[in-house]
Amino acid sequence: MPVLGHTQYGKAEVRVVRVFRDTDPHRIADHNVSVALSGDFADTHLTGDNSGVLTTDAIRNTVNAFAREAGDAVGAPEAFGRALARHFTAVPQVSRARVRIETYPWRRLEHDGQPHPHAFTRDGGHTRTTTVTATDDGGGWTVSGVAGLVVLKTTGSEFHGFHVDRYTTLAPTTDRMLATEVSAQWWHADDPADWNDSHRTVLGALTSAFAGHHSLSLQQTLHHVGVAVLTAGPGIGEIRLSLPNKHHLLVDLSPFGLDNPGEVFHADDRPYGLIEGAVRRDDLPDPGPAFAGW
Amino acid sequence: MPVLGHTQYGKAEVRVVRVFRDTDPHRIADHNVSVALSGDFADTHLTGDNSGVLTTDAIRNTVNAFAREAGDAVGAPEAFGRALARHFTAVPQVSRARVRIETYPWRRLEHDGQPHPHAFTRDGGHTRTTTVTATDDGGGWTVSGVAGLVVLKTTGSEFHGFHVDRYTTLAPTTDRMLATEVSAQWWHADDPADWNDSHRTVLGALTSAFAGHHSLSLQQTLHHVGVAVLTAGPGIGEIRLSLPNKHHLLVDLSPFGLDNPGEVFHADDRPYGLIEGAVRRDDLPDPGPAFAGW
Amino acid sequence: MPVLGHTQYGKAEVRVVRVFRDTDPHRIADHNVSVALSGDFADTHLTGDNSGVLTTDAIRNTVNAFAREAGDAVGAPEAFGRALARHFTAVPQVSRARVRIETYPWRRLEHDGQPHPHAFTRDGGHTRTTTVTATDDGGGWTVSGVAGLVVLKTTGSEFHGFHVDRYTTLAPTTDRMLATEVSAQWWHADDPADWNDSHRTVLGALTSAFAGHHSLSLQQTLHHVGVAVLTAGPGIGEIRLSLPNKHHLLVDLSPFGLDNPGEVFHADDRPYGLIEGAVRRDDLPDPGPAFAGW
Amino acid sequence: MPVLGHTQYGKAEVRVVRVFRDTDPHRIADHNVSVALSGDFADTHLTGDNSGVLTTDAIRNTVNAFAREAGDAVGAPEAFGRALARHFTAVPQVSRARVRIETYPWRRLEHDGQPHPHAFTRDGGHTRTTTVTATDDGGGWTVSGVAGLVVLKTTGSEFHGFHVDRYTTLAPTTDRMLATEVSAQWWHADDPADWNDSHRTVLGALTSAFAGHHSLSLQQTLHHVGVAVLTAGPGIGEIRLSLPNKHHLLVDLSPFGLDNPGEVFHADDRPYGLIEGAVRRDDLPDPGPAFAGW
Repeated sequence: MPVLGHTQYGKAEVRVVRVFRDTDPHRIADHNVSVALSGDFADTHLTGDNSGVLTTDAIRNTVNAFAREAGDAVGAPEAFGRALARHFTAVPQVSRARVRIETYPWRRLEHDGQPHPHAFTRDGGHTRTTTVTATDDGGGWTVSGVAGLVVLKTTGSEFHGFHVDRYTTLAPTTDRMLATEVSAQWWHADDPADWNDSHRTVLGALTSAFAGHHSLSLQQTLHHVGVAVLTAGPGIGEIRLSLPNKHHLLVDLSPFGLDNPGEVFHADDRPYGLIEGAVRRDDLPDPGPAFAGW
Repeated sequence: MPVLGHTQYGKAEVRVVRVFRDTDPHRIADHNVSVALSGDFADTHLTGDNSGVLTTDAIRNTVNAFAREAGDAVGAPEAFGRALARHFTAVPQVSRARVRIETYPWRRLEHDGQPHPHAFTRDGGHTRTTTVTATDDGGGWTVSGVAGLVVLKTTGSEFHGFHVDRYTTLAPTTDRMLATEVSAQWWHADDPADWNDSHRTVLGALTSAFAGHHSLSLQQTLHHVGVAVLTAGPGIGEIRLSLPNKHHLLVDLSPFGLDNPGEVFHADDRPYGLIEGAVRRDDLPDPGPAFAGW
Repeated sequence: MPVLGHTQYGKAEVRVVRVFRDTDPHRIADHNVSVALSGDFADTHLTGDNSGVLTTDAIRNTVNAFAREAGDAVGAPEAFGRALARHFTAVPQVSRARVRIETYPWRRLEHDGQPHPHAFTRDGGHTRTTTVTATDDGGGWTVSGVAGLVVLKTTGSEFHGFHVDRYTTLAPTTDRMLATEVSAQWWHADDPADWNDSHRTVLGALTSAFAGHHSLSLQQTLHHVGVAVLTAGPGIGEIRLSLPNKHHLLVDLSPFGLDNPGEVFHADDRPYGLIEGAVRRDDLPDPGPAFAGW
Repeated sequence: MPVLGHTQYGKAEVRVVRVFRDTDPHRIADHNVSVALSGDFADTHLTGDNSGVLTTDAIRNTVNAFAREAGDAVGAPEAFGRALARHFTAVPQVSRARVRIETYPWRRLEHDGQPHPHAFTRDGGHTRTTTVTATDDGGGWTVSGVAGLVVLKTTGSEFHGFHVDRYTTLAPTTDRMLATEVSAQWWHADDPADWNDSHRTVLGALTSAFAGHHSLSLQQTLHHVGVAVLTAGPGIGEIRLSLPNKHHLLVDLSPFGLDNPGEVFHADDRPYGLIEGAVRRDDLPDPGPAFAGW
């Protein structure tokens, strides 16, 4: 007999921009906020009785109102997400609230060689991500992250010695181009003193580790980067990395009488390798629902 | 101390088109295949020893080769995915293989009023999705699905009687437009006789249930649709639906001296409500890793 | 000395959905309307004096209001675009108005085997496009079109006998797969009796011509299709076609001991050929600003 | 009678990455190259006689070969585009060649606080664009540009005193947020000494002018920015700017008992204003086909 399984609902992609005008120069925070609530909502599914349902319209209003009321917390998505998640778990029917935020970084523009106090340009190099999960029994998990961070090494990457089967045609190489678009999420077992400082520190550790690593496989680079992040952020309990291998294929120029000593590459779209993995501290309990899924 | 957690890797988005020329009219199958393998791959992560690693290049080659060798199975993504998943679990280091396929439907074009035997047009109304998971101990789960199916009702949808808090401003309504872009995945507890027939049946049941349901909330519609699918496909053990509420907002024309009796709507982009939930048979064990995640 | 050149401004992407409830079954029209005005707007550019500027906010309001007031005309984008363009050319500063509309087709859903009077699904196979240009001296041009129409032939396409230079490596072929995503725009030298009938007729002629043509080059197919459209729609003065050659590359399976008799193809993303061209009646004057540009 | 009108064809989106290894630190150039040829190609359209057609496959090969052969010129898209365009106009049937290039900027990553010689991250803040047009009679036009450059001002923008008609509801304002995503293209009447220096200079002038301008309308800002660019680059003959007004709407928080003194904004997706215009030197001839169209 068909029965209701897990459900959740909420408002997705509330695009809120907060300006801090109380200081000059101004500061801005640019967030895309999605909220998912779960709990005792069987009635609306089974009978259409909505008496326990907080409208998704109210969820959007709450995000906007908190953008005004939460003050400086709005400047750090982890703090903003926590304030929201804590609020929603107090709604009667809600047992778990999950707040996901994409934050778009901006840099100050220059005018006549000086940073301008009110003008900005979007720094398109990456998106900062946050997932806060809170339960009505007081549980809470905060995950920070980055998405869309494209990095590349022109040398210092090898790949050989792999398993060969009937369908293997790849030639081993001791010098290839390595490029990936990093998506990473890290769970804070302990809170850092400052969320924005922490994000900068992790981003620096991650990119420095990528740059400096002599890679024998993208898998090895993933582990190396993960260890570097956990070492740089002692409160971080686990990092999960998703590294698409953005293949740069050496173009065969021999039909035109030309050699190609690692100079001309085709940046291929699809298919791509996809290497995913976690590095975690071995002294911690399971992170529960920290990493988003249902 | 940092240790390696769960890992997986593979080739994503192998775009293979199979033509069946042995019959006239021709038939085509258009798949986007992604493979993720997990198992005993710690060496490549920890030391760069790749001796157990099947290259992602070989994974792509395997997909292409099977598109030739698997014959008619290629015409049903569930069958194609199973053949691939079973093959990959036989690779020594692999304990679990997951094959995800997006399949793009095509319809035959007409020429001079007759179906043409070799000409097609892509039916952009939805994408068919498949997730097959297999383990090296013989376990297997097959999930079919649909994505990008946009449906709309001009009437027959209400929403009122909801919980009101400080941030609630939505007016209750007994007649609204309801639109959503259906993503659904359903797990086959038992195999159907024909995968393509089964997909057509489920799609028909799903859209018929959406069309005929007088909705008191999108949540109620979700449950109604889920029950209809489980009833239409007796072998289906669980369906998971993700229903973004694509808001169509009645435009206020009163500043121009005009009324708007449910005629002119703004199709808003963001934010949107997002209603998700499962309907499952209550006589079955847990579907394990059937629904994709890590 | 820097001087102001051509300018234009307007509101882009007004997403208006019109429901016709006066009949049962209901009908819907789903438009994405963009308006660009040009004329005597130097003051706002040079001094910030906006006294001649109709706000883009008012342009959006006008689109919405006309969606109520224009009645049945809203059901045909060409008629809707004309009503809007004519209105805007009457604004004092405006000398030319251009209205571009993307229209999304919907089909009626079935419930219990019957067409449902209020339920629809979006037909994702193509977008209908319209460009209306009007000038304040009474000039007017109407262009209809289609975008995103993906078509494919599994056989009946050759390509050989081409120019060979130092950089040519392509092998000639007498049987290849041919696929393209049609963008077409056609200018109506004379108005058809019914815009929606006309669009159906052209779409039918275009796809039938593609299906039935034995192709020696995509260029030849372009011309053949263009002639077919002009023949089917006697009032059509010119059609412009943009045909990306979506390459389907035969996969070399010989490393795995397999042949590939035209069965397994890689659907490549980039690069792609791009074939563009016009077919026009030779007895007509120049279509002026009919085809959008600045 | 239907006759052939204007035609053009070529290869679009050749994704070539060039590594300069002859120096340490390495440098990279990341281009997306599209080529369109026009000329005497009626035969292939009318009869399928391809004897004058350079294959699009050969066009792609040529781009790749030139990426090896053209040396340092590959590092500046304007120089690379010119070398390619000049080559293609020498193909017998070709009378005009147009080469468009999107170039993706990269910055050097740091490792242990020092710039790394072989590791890079993509600077996602903008794309550099180039359009080179050459004719077989020796004519040539070079246009540089930028796309995807998102800029914002939290204050220093007014909009009032506009024309009011029946459909106008916008309230005048003396302090609004102004945001746009700049697309700009500028034609070089005279060549600069160094293309890369020139691009940096223009980008600096453009963003500095945007930051420093007290705006009475986005139209006025467009003109101000255009004049600044022409002043900074004395060889620039014309700049064309496309400035979507990315509306940031002040959220009404009064239903929740909150004021909103310019702090909380909704970043709206659609519709958006679109302001376009040119600023040009008044002492120059028409730029002919410099700005891409057909």
